[in-house]
Amino acid sequence: MGKVKVGVLGATGSVGQRFIQLLENHEYFEVVALGASDKSAGNLYKDVMKSRWKVSSKIPDYAANMKITRCTPKETPGVDLVFSGLDSDVAGEVETEYAQAGVMVISNSKNHRTDKDVPILSAEVNSEQLKVLEAQKTKGKIITNSNCTIMGVTITLKPLLDAYGIESVFIVSMQAISGAGYPGVPSLDILGNVVPHIGGEEEKVEMEPQKCLGKVSGGKIVPANFKISAHCNRVPVIDGHTVCVSVKLKKKTTVEKIKKLWAEFSGEPQKLKLPSAPLQVIDYREEIDRPQPRLDLMNGNGMTTTVGRLRPDPLFDFKYVVLSHNTIRGAAGAAILNAELVYKKGYLRVK
Amino acid sequence: MGKVKVGVLGATGSVGQRFIQLLENHEYFEVVALGASDKSAGNLYKDVMKSRWKVSSKIPDYAANMKITRCTPKETPGVDLVFSGLDSDVAGEVETEYAQAGVMVISNSKNHRTDKDVPILSAEVNSEQLKVLEAQKTKGKIITNSNCTIMGVTITLKPLLDAYGIESVFIVSMQAISGAGYPGVPSLDILGNVVPHIGGEEEKVEMEPQKCLGKVSGGKIVPANFKISAHCNRVPVIDGHTVCVSVKLKKKTTVEKIKKLWAEFSGEPQKLKLPSAPLQVIDYREEIDRPQPRLDLMNGNGMTTTVGRLRPDPLFDFKYVVLSHNTIRGAAGAAILNAELVYKKGYLRVK
Amino acid sequence: MGKVKVGVLGATGSVGQRFIQLLENHEYFEVVALGASDKSAGNLYKDVMKSRWKVSSKIPDYAANMKITRCTPKETPGVDLVFSGLDSDVAGEVETEYAQAGVMVISNSKNHRTDKDVPILSAEVNSEQLKVLEAQKTKGKIITNSNCTIMGVTITLKPLLDAYGIESVFIVSMQAISGAGYPGVPSLDILGNVVPHIGGEEEKVEMEPQKCLGKVSGGKIVPANFKISAHCNRVPVIDGHTVCVSVKLKKKTTVEKIKKLWAEFSGEPQKLKLPSAPLQVIDYREEIDRPQPRLDLMNGNGMTTTVGRLRPDPLFDFKYVVLSHNTIRGAAGAAILNAELVYKKGYLRVK
Amino acid sequence: MGKVKVGVLGATGSVGQRFIQLLENHEYFEVVALGASDKSAGNLYKDVMKSRWKVSSKIPDYAANMKITRCTPKETPGVDLVFSGLDSDVAGEVETEYAQAGVMVISNSKNHRTDKDVPILSAEVNSEQLKVLEAQKTKGKIITNSNCTIMGVTITLKPLLDAYGIESVFIVSMQAISGAGYPGVPSLDILGNVVPHIGGEEEKVEMEPQKCLGKVSGGKIVPANFKISAHCNRVPVIDGHTVCVSVKLKKKTTVEKIKKLWAEFSGEPQKLKLPSAPLQVIDYREEIDRPQPRLDLMNGNGMTTTVGRLRPDPLFDFKYVVLSHNTIRGAAGAAILNAELVYKKGYLRVK
Repeated sequence: MGKVKVGVLGATGSVGQRFIQLLENHEYFEVVALGASDKSAGNLYKDVMKSRWKVSSKIPDYAANMKITRCTPKETPGVDLVFSGLDSDVAGEVETEYAQAGVMVISNSKNHRTDKDVPILSAEVNSEQLKVLEAQKTKGKIITNSNCTIMGVTITLKPLLDAYGIESVFIVSMQAISGAGYPGVPSLDILGNVVPHIGGEEEKVEMEPQKCLGKVSGGKIVPANFKISAHCNRVPVIDGHTVCVSVKLKKKTTVEKIKKLWAEFSGEPQKLKLPSAPLQVIDYREEIDRPQPRLDLMNGNGMTTTVGRLRPDPLFDFKYVVLSHNTIRGAAGAAILNAELVYKKGYLRVK
Repeated sequence: MGKVKVGVLGATGSVGQRFIQLLENHEYFEVVALGASDKSAGNLYKDVMKSRWKVSSKIPDYAANMKITRCTPKETPGVDLVFSGLDSDVAGEVETEYAQAGVMVISNSKNHRTDKDVPILSAEVNSEQLKVLEAQKTKGKIITNSNCTIMGVTITLKPLLDAYGIESVFIVSMQAISGAGYPGVPSLDILGNVVPHIGGEEEKVEMEPQKCLGKVSGGKIVPANFKISAHCNRVPVIDGHTVCVSVKLKKKTTVEKIKKLWAEFSGEPQKLKLPSAPLQVIDYREEIDRPQPRLDLMNGNGMTTTVGRLRPDPLFDFKYVVLSHNTIRGAAGAAILNAELVYKKGYLRVK
Repeated sequence: MGKVKVGVLGATGSVGQRFIQLLENHEYFEVVALGASDKSAGNLYKDVMKSRWKVSSKIPDYAANMKITRCTPKETPGVDLVFSGLDSDVAGEVETEYAQAGVMVISNSKNHRTDKDVPILSAEVNSEQLKVLEAQKTKGKIITNSNCTIMGVTITLKPLLDAYGIESVFIVSMQAISGAGYPGVPSLDILGNVVPHIGGEEEKVEMEPQKCLGKVSGGKIVPANFKISAHCNRVPVIDGHTVCVSVKLKKKTTVEKIKKLWAEFSGEPQKLKLPSAPLQVIDYREEIDRPQPRLDLMNGNGMTTTVGRLRPDPLFDFKYVVLSHNTIRGAAGAAILNAELVYKKGYLRVK
Repeated sequence: MGKVKVGVLGATGSVGQRFIQLLENHEYFEVVALGASDKSAGNLYKDVMKSRWKVSSKIPDYAANMKITRCTPKETPGVDLVFSGLDSDVAGEVETEYAQAGVMVISNSKNHRTDKDVPILSAEVNSEQLKVLEAQKTKGKIITNSNCTIMGVTITLKPLLDAYGIESVFIVSMQAISGAGYPGVPSLDILGNVVPHIGGEEEKVEMEPQKCLGKVSGGKIVPANFKISAHCNRVPVIDGHTVCVSVKLKKKTTVEKIKKLWAEFSGEPQKLKLPSAPLQVIDYREEIDRPQPRLDLMNGNGMTTTVGRLRPDPLFDFKYVVLSHNTIRGAAGAAILNAELVYKKGYLRVK
């Protein structure tokens, strides 16, 4: 029995490149289509990417000699699932078109994240939200993953929410430049500098975790009921978002109990032994100055969330620091893990 | 009438170098002694500093050919005031020795900051705290300035405290490497990285603003009564600490009213037209992505506090971003402004 | 008697911003026109530049409230001279149009640099080349300055050429990102990286110094007769091009003699005490690890060429390192110095 | 049959850490001893390295719980070979002591590189130089690898030397900070900066390639006969030395012929299929702006030399750019490849 035939939409962009890298020799999926803009369509991937491939490993052979197509179901026949790394100005429409054509859409774009029947799926956190897919009227279903900044944070909050309940969360991010794509942030703006603003980011950070941590009730997702305040900053780091978190809980607990919860936290991806699932979902570092992007970025092949500095907070209950790889765990890797989950759980109908 | 004769203690260190740079051609002060360790003592400043001068302008001529002495009153006779940029492992004792010898000590070190009768002087904020100097038993008096990280923050809080009262403050800093001195932070630790820990910093940030913003009562400083939570981070920036602040006030107000308060804020240094006083104490930038170290660092010759992004906060009342130059406004420049203030107000007895 | 009325063409670009900064309160020149693209024309400079002003000081008041015009003589009446920081895709034509309209053009663009009757003027090096202006057929004359990378190198070669003759020169540059303008180099390409290629740069570096160091003969510039080999690299530095130079001379000499020649080198700008002329044209640093962009960039307000590490070379005769500020000495500052020179020498006819 | 028992000397340093990382699960070698200074000896490796492990992957389990010993044969009994990453102030003596005790020494230190009977072994380049080991009087033999900067350059020169002969070579390096160890380069010296000097580096770069490329004659190494001129610079890059090379050959050739030679170049490590041997020794990139540290560093697991921009040179014959990973191919990886070679070729006598 063969692999699932998949396509990558937005294949020339930053997230698309990661998809192509991470899908090389994948156990379940075979990439048979690379979709991009009209300008690139018709050309070999390697020719278009000559000076645009920015991942620090070579273009995988399977992709190098593939011809790019446009992002429409007609031009990518035979795919059962697409990974979308499209820009948000086109993602909404294109993804809907694929869903209508009966193709499952695993999207990294923000466009459908606020739809009531579209889960922001974080495979270890809320696989039960897959139930709401039924409510989607299209034949193909759309699944999104969360914004890169809150991916790791939400994972650390999940066991706290289940065990103690959450009152409020304070988040300050120091985000890597790769989050802005390519060409993205001009070097004159960020070299030796901090930019205390990222367009639209704080809004997402203050809203997505609650939906991701919500419950399904009456076929709909009911967001968790707590407030978040966020400051988002850009710093001169290539990959890896570092986030300072303070959290107020509903019940009393201790630093040691939280560490234990985190150490033991795992979800369906671990049970099902999905190919992209990290063995350790949350890795707590005892050193006083961790996590750090340079040292902890590739923990669990970029899929583990690294945490450190858990300590009491004078205003909230606890404070800690979270690092996750923004283009792997926070984007392409998370989307692939989501696809593995829906495939193994039988949500994906292969033609 | 001549200038006040002053000495610089710790003249070879990072803060010492800034003192020497900023005191060139000073209107009130003439540097007549450069104090450093036993190893440097006896040598010309320019010879010792050949590869250690790290300020991006040349060693001022007045200092280049001065002979370094040890940091003891006997070896620096004739000084009425010393600026101390000493390391905290020696500062406490040396500063006390100078005070006992009748020399006014303007210190950038943390050692005496927690003494009840030593003000953490921020010239625009709490000049009334100079009253407590009387309580010091030494003939010479000791005055400190605050930690570099909270210098600008405290200035922005002062008018809020006076107008509305403060409930609580949340602070996340992204601090420049120059704050760690030289050699300081190894490049392998910080290039393209974030380090979410600075030894002893969060403790100072959570305690010093309240003392700085306190009232004098019964000859003692009574700290302001609010709580602070702090996360402190090191980022790859040369100079300039960027701080995300969220604040809860006791009374309701608006963004526009706070901007107005900040625009109009000034203190004794401005009234007295002190040489190092910035014309504009707080400069609010309306652009959406300011302040930034690279663009706003030298605002007001490094003495102005630049603020931006004031907006409502879902958990606190308001959030905003503060930038101040950590080795000018946050260290040497603040100390010199303090010295100018005590001189003009008659606290300095010149022999 | 009033100041010369001047315009800045390309006023919104990187070089244009430097022109505007450096021309504030200029002794000879008064900026009366700011020219830019059709898109910007008609708007106030401060409104257009809200998030595009990237010089680390505020927009000078004189420019902030000026209305931008298009770059054509009809829309900038009354200017006797224009400073051109235009992109090379439009500079050639626009500059010719101004020259035909009788306006002196001081250009930082490469378009006219290869014209036989247009000098690549480096004010201390080849003011005698101004003689060829007569050969230009337009009423207004065009003067260019050299490429930023070779500006400082050419200055160091001038006294060597005069005293010993030059056989060949080897140049390897490590160039700052500001040389590429804004948005210019994407941060993903240069943060923690070296890019060993800059489009068209090596060609300019291997050709311009010979013309700049040439003699006038029969009303034409005859380039100096030596060969240059160049490798040009981009490095993560904001401002300041560092260049490794090896040179083979026609006569024997010594390190000490060359240092003396450099220390004594000066030209017409120094004789005429032009406002932008550095007191010290070449500043040789004896420290073993200089020059460095961070420490020496602003030497002589960014107009001095800083040199170090002069030593014998096993293949050539001598090797050394040159630093100059690429957007001041290498662009806007050099152009303004050129304008000051032609003005003082009477080449500029004021209406 | 078991693996060869080896020790790592200088196990806590930068190169030592790489040895430990790269020797995890090695096919031939089993690490049974970790040697370090008196201060570290007696402690578990993981305890000593808590905040000193700077490689971006975790301490391998095999090393974490090993007890550190002092660097003397008595305290590391049972080892047949040691990898030395010792500092040069102690390496010379310690390495001799091990050789006298009958242990093979594979050294990354410079101390014995100039010994006539000690090869600077570059496994693909000069395995024939192993013949001179006989001349060493100690029972154990000492083998060094070259300085990190010239490792890749020498590999690219080898096929040129064999095919055409070399007249002279010009080298300008832009070297990563990891080359200076830890704490190494202070961040204040290198962030956003270039330092045009590295102590003792140019001397090594101008001398080692000739020995490495030399012939054995009469039991001694006779260096190749050509001159090198070098400028060495430090740039803000974590790992990866980028080198601009210009070369003058004895015979005429073409860009295409050289590319072919490089593409086909391989040596004994490839023939013997040594575990650390890269499949492709030299990888030529056709893109105009390569190699780059960020994109090409890990080519061939950090063991491939990446080259680009081969083009004619106006003064020499050809110029090109070389990148190699300074702590893998330029240090620990090269040393391990050397050990694999001597093991497979029977030079290593196992007890």
